[in-house]
Amino acid sequence: MTHPCYAVLEVVLAGPEEPVPADRVPFWAVFEHESGDVQRVPGFWDGGNRYLARFAPEREGHWTWTASSEAATLSGKTGTITVTAPTPGEHGPVRVAGTFHFAHADGTPFRPVGATVYNWLHQPGERFAATVDSLAEAGFNKLRFMVFPQAGGYVEHFPELLPFECGPDGRYDVTRPVVDFFRKLDAAVVLLQSRGIQADVLIYNAYDNGRFGLDGLTQAEDAVYLRYLVARLSAYANVWWSLCNEFDILDRPTPRWDAAGELLAVTDPHDHLRSIHNWVRFYDHNQPWVTHASIQLGQATEDFGRASLFRDAYRKPVVLDEIKYEGDVPERWGHLTARELVHQFWITTVSGCYASHGESLVLDDGSLHIVEGGRLRGESPERLGFLRRLLDEVDGDGLDPIDNWWDGAFVAGIPGRVYFQYLGRSAPGSWTFRLPNAAMGTQLEVGDRFEVDVIDTWNMTVKPVGRTFELAEVQRNDAFAGDAEPVQLPEGEALALRIRRIPQPAVAG
Amino acid sequence: MTHPCYAVLEVVLAGPEEPVPADRVPFWAVFEHESGDVQRVPGFWDGGNRYLARFAPEREGHWTWTASSEAATLSGKTGTITVTAPTPGEHGPVRVAGTFHFAHADGTPFRPVGATVYNWLHQPGERFAATVDSLAEAGFNKLRFMVFPQAGGYVEHFPELLPFECGPDGRYDVTRPVVDFFRKLDAAVVLLQSRGIQADVLIYNAYDNGRFGLDGLTQAEDAVYLRYLVARLSAYANVWWSLCNEFDILDRPTPRWDAAGELLAVTDPHDHLRSIHNWVRFYDHNQPWVTHASIQLGQATEDFGRASLFRDAYRKPVVLDEIKYEGDVPERWGHLTARELVHQFWITTVSGCYASHGESLVLDDGSLHIVEGGRLRGESPERLGFLRRLLDEVDGDGLDPIDNWWDGAFVAGIPGRVYFQYLGRSAPGSWTFRLPNAAMGTQLEVGDRFEVDVIDTWNMTVKPVGRTFELAEVQRNDAFAGDAEPVQLPEGEALALRIRRIPQPAVAG
Repeated sequence: MTHPCYAVLEVVLAGPEEPVPADRVPFWAVFEHESGDVQRVPGFWDGGNRYLARFAPEREGHWTWTASSEAATLSGKTGTITVTAPTPGEHGPVRVAGTFHFAHADGTPFRPVGATVYNWLHQPGERFAATVDSLAEAGFNKLRFMVFPQAGGYVEHFPELLPFECGPDGRYDVTRPVVDFFRKLDAAVVLLQSRGIQADVLIYNAYDNGRFGLDGLTQAEDAVYLRYLVARLSAYANVWWSLCNEFDILDRPTPRWDAAGELLAVTDPHDHLRSIHNWVRFYDHNQPWVTHASIQLGQATEDFGRASLFRDAYRKPVVLDEIKYEGDVPERWGHLTARELVHQFWITTVSGCYASHGESLVLDDGSLHIVEGGRLRGESPERLGFLRRLLDEVDGDGLDPIDNWWDGAFVAGIPGRVYFQYLGRSAPGSWTFRLPNAAMGTQLEVGDRFEVDVIDTWNMTVKPVGRTFELAEVQRNDAFAGDAEPVQLPEGEALALRIRRIPQPAVAG
Repeated sequence: MTHPCYAVLEVVLAGPEEPVPADRVPFWAVFEHESGDVQRVPGFWDGGNRYLARFAPEREGHWTWTASSEAATLSGKTGTITVTAPTPGEHGPVRVAGTFHFAHADGTPFRPVGATVYNWLHQPGERFAATVDSLAEAGFNKLRFMVFPQAGGYVEHFPELLPFECGPDGRYDVTRPVVDFFRKLDAAVVLLQSRGIQADVLIYNAYDNGRFGLDGLTQAEDAVYLRYLVARLSAYANVWWSLCNEFDILDRPTPRWDAAGELLAVTDPHDHLRSIHNWVRFYDHNQPWVTHASIQLGQATEDFGRASLFRDAYRKPVVLDEIKYEGDVPERWGHLTARELVHQFWITTVSGCYASHGESLVLDDGSLHIVEGGRLRGESPERLGFLRRLLDEVDGDGLDPIDNWWDGAFVAGIPGRVYFQYLGRSAPGSWTFRLPNAAMGTQLEVGDRFEVDVIDTWNMTVKPVGRTFELAEVQRNDAFAGDAEPVQLPEGEALALRIRRIPQPAVAG
């Protein structure tokens, strides 16, 4: 049997009709690569006598697997696979790269330009599909959504399909997952993958408000659910884990969150990205189980010089997963103009961080896109798709602030290669060539040559200046192009500059 | 024998002339309070056959002590003390209070308005004394200075008195401390205490530049020195520990710093404040041994909305211990105007953080005050003394940003009691009464009455508006005083507002 790298391989076994309770792993599939490397993958019950283990190999070559279980019918099965090159376009799971950035398992950089539809999974089929079509067309490459259904303001659809059977006491029995529910979740993740969208899966739910009672599970029940969820979804390359959106809305002690995060880290055989997102109280993102800081702070991206401080504090990728929404609701989190939201994405970009979009324009039925999805209607998504394409062109891990110590020149880039300077919502009439040259990363020399593009972040144009700028003076903290003419700019517009080094021509021999 | 609380008690013992090597604790003095509580204090060698243990009791009542040692002449000695009420004005060591602030052991709040003279300890006597006189007159209440001498730019005085004898191999022998050196250090700490100044002791030194070789000690030698230093100084109430200024200038692995910090935490019997200060790479201030985040980041206090993010990240007090200096040197860290520095202190204040001052006006001999001290000459110290007096009047742990999530109103205070709003370097012509009312801390009600003072941060005046503002509307995030006349302001000045609640009159029975 051959199987492409990064694709989901399913070991399907017939086991006991009376399922091995989901508070235990029903079987383990142990995959051994020809090199001797071993990966241990938890299986899960999939209804009736059907048991699965899902594995996505990341190495080509010969693998063997063996199943072990306390149930005799599941134990001792074996198989072999030859893993071949990945299907074109498949790059594997996204992980941390270059301290502050992301890349797929094969090294392909990934720059999240994410969207948010919390209750997407629980929408009727037409809206469910339209949501993904619209996000993909706009160019979003990550979606935050919840496994458990949402209740509360702006929620218009309440699902009947819920994740667990109820026990005789009326409580959820987390050892009896509703397979149809989780198959729907599988399909949702696969659908996103087919559209090039990472699934940022929100595991627990701070928005139950007592309606479904899924926020009332005990810590032990939460752990049973987490193990089952991870066993089902981990093999999908596009999964990211987020323990909760606005975790601190729930009245739970921090050590419970710590334990959940640590369980997630040891449970996931594919080592996906892991985060937790706050309301007003921050989690300690320095904890080892946290791969990147997922942050809400309304003001952090409203002006320059703020968000990058989180990079200094955490030394991990920083994703501002809630920077308020383009919308028209009265709540202060929900009425940014499109121009303001696009502006905040650009500030985030030159802060060396990433952000997520959300739309809170009130829909005819009283709901919001961030809650129930559907087609996007705002003016920001197209501009964020434009930003994403510019980020995708960057050759390197990602954009880092060049000289974060210093105010007044918010430039991010890859030293000596490419720089982005965002001029804010009101550009000056002209710009004189200058590059920051941080003490820690000096890579500039007199004679280096650069080309400059003027980027209109709203009208989505990239205009080359058409001149070459040659460094005439390289100081400790700045580099200048002598008396090169300033670049004339359309004053007052939301502009950015892209400054790229021109490779040295090969010296004739 | 009676002894006042918080004062330094010395157990003086005669021991072996051949000292117990300083890589071991020569004896322990075990102090037992009548309640049964025990504190174990390390002794140290003080020259010849003289051994000391210093202890500052924090509880009144009867104490007994017993000495134990591997040296027979130091072992078995005992004594009793009756600890009485503290001397008036003595409040004990400063520790963390209210998550983000500081208070003395007796509960008296402490708001650091600190100064910096790195090489103070190594100056000639006249300059050494003048430094303290000038700092105390200006109103500074904390001083950062190094134990080891500094070399490099702007250093004009190099001491002959060094902390360790040299061994036969020409290397320092850290087991043979130079007692005169450390007695001088004792006296320096005591002098600061007598002037109401906390001694922020920089234990290691990133500015040796190979001149003294004190940055070339091994990790084990560093630990011997740290234990000796702690044994000598810990009983002084005004000690703060800082592992290093700009630790990341030294090429050392992070785990070495971690280990030094953890050693400090377990070694210090009086549990003083502990921090580490960065150059461009941040330390993980979430580590348990760190009591407060001591941070350098040039841009963090240059604008609103930045420094407070470190509070969110660390949930500890944040002290910006290097926010650039008032001065006239060409380096970009050293030529703030006094107005800029005072402005940054006020931004720091409404960010719920603390800052340290430094002066880098070039002196006649080519040195700088931050290096060698002497009398202050700048225009900022007087204004910082004014700020400190305002902070000292605050009744509560300290000022917290009321609504850090939201941009546009940078107000810090104690909800429902007192608020400071800083208007920046260029106040508007008038201010309409408005208080933030954060979702997390609602303490405002319609009918609450407030008085407002207009503070001129440069001219050091506090002018009451002379009217009462009564809340007419309390919304989720803001509270307003109906149609109260706006407060007229001297437009363009660096102003702050202090808004204090007027206590309810007692209801007549």
